[in-house]
Amino acid sequence: MVDDDVTVLRAVLFDIDGTLVDSNYLHVDAWQRAFDAVGHPVDAWRIHRAIGMDSGTLLDAILGDDRQQVGERAKRLHAEHLAASASRLRTFPGARQLLTAVDSLGIRVTLCTSAPPDELTRLLTVLDADDVVHAVTSADDVDQAKPDPHIIHAALSKAGVSAEQAVMLGDTVWDAIAAGRAGVPCVGVMSGGISAADLVEAGAIAVYEDVADLLRNLEASPFLAH
Amino acid sequence: MVDDDVTVLRAVLFDIDGTLVDSNYLHVDAWQRAFDAVGHPVDAWRIHRAIGMDSGTLLDAILGDDRQQVGERAKRLHAEHLAASASRLRTFPGARQLLTAVDSLGIRVTLCTSAPPDELTRLLTVLDADDVVHAVTSADDVDQAKPDPHIIHAALSKAGVSAEQAVMLGDTVWDAIAAGRAGVPCVGVMSGGISAADLVEAGAIAVYEDVADLLRNLEASPFLAH
Repeated sequence: MVDDDVTVLRAVLFDIDGTLVDSNYLHVDAWQRAFDAVGHPVDAWRIHRAIGMDSGTLLDAILGDDRQQVGERAKRLHAEHLAASASRLRTFPGARQLLTAVDSLGIRVTLCTSAPPDELTRLLTVLDADDVVHAVTSADDVDQAKPDPHIIHAALSKAGVSAEQAVMLGDTVWDAIAAGRAGVPCVGVMSGGISAADLVEAGAIAVYEDVADLLRNLEASPFLAH
Repeated sequence: MVDDDVTVLRAVLFDIDGTLVDSNYLHVDAWQRAFDAVGHPVDAWRIHRAIGMDSGTLLDAILGDDRQQVGERAKRLHAEHLAASASRLRTFPGARQLLTAVDSLGIRVTLCTSAPPDELTRLLTVLDADDVVHAVTSADDVDQAKPDPHIIHAALSKAGVSAEQAVMLGDTVWDAIAAGRAGVPCVGVMSGGISAADLVEAGAIAVYEDVADLLRNLEASPFLAH
């Protein structure tokens, strides 16, 4: 009856952008071009630190009073610039191998993102891991995404597990905060460009350089030493 | 004779990229495109963490064994991509005001960069602060730049001050390390996308969000409380 033990890890919730796919800096570039075009220039580092929030929350945080006026146009322009850089999307070294390793341990690979449908399609194509993915959340599953915990609840529900049976893997403070609010421990990776110190401060219980580093150290990681 | 007191601050050495001008993410993008083109793809976050090194050291660190084979071509392609994004270069809010404030305190504003001549020309044009700049170092002044301390020695020499009479302002761990090796205290800013924790670990004695934040807190800063 080990499988029914609430403390056994039964699902890993994987963030995609910056965690499995090298896309954060493409997002920063696309947002900066979009904000320039709508007449509300924003320093790149401030955009970078907001990446990982869902786009509605990001627009609120960055545009403030200009949100109503230019928010939707900025969002559309971001989507256009991002689509234009689609050929540059790549998985991080070890991403597919990690998903396969987790799946072969009998742990449900659950992709947990609020990317809009067209972005998600591109990410899944680049990932090319449908055979090992158990479930995927998308923007359609929730009104508000990270740092709101609803996206985590949606992912747990799709994986068919409780918070105690899951671990999140993400690259931003918003992943760590959202997971924490849902009672799911979060493991961090630095591949989105956010420092280990910032991830730990946001609640990450362990931080690896990237998925390849986690894969090399899987046995001692919170995935197996849950 | 206060002016001869070795402990009086007589010069601030300002890094430009990521400190005064919002260019780090343009550098990351230009390097990533360049590395892709020469067949040696590199994750964006690893490039980001190498920004602030001089380009020769960056190429050694990132390309390893491929350095001899593709290094010079990557460097040329980076320069081309960066030049193509020149219209997006902007000073950070408060950059010019900070230089003016420092100059009007009788402290020598010294720009300390190893940018090649064409990059430097573009940066100085965007800064538009010739009237308050006392001296500028460039790639011509040193063989090896940050984290090697020679660039700091060159800047001190051009400013006509000793290490004890200067403070460095920079946004990368390489600024903090180079300054530390030359015996110059380094103040950090987060506007290049490097975390406060990483800057402090590299030796920064204080960290501000950006130059505007430093300007608001100038009286209590190491610039005035030297």
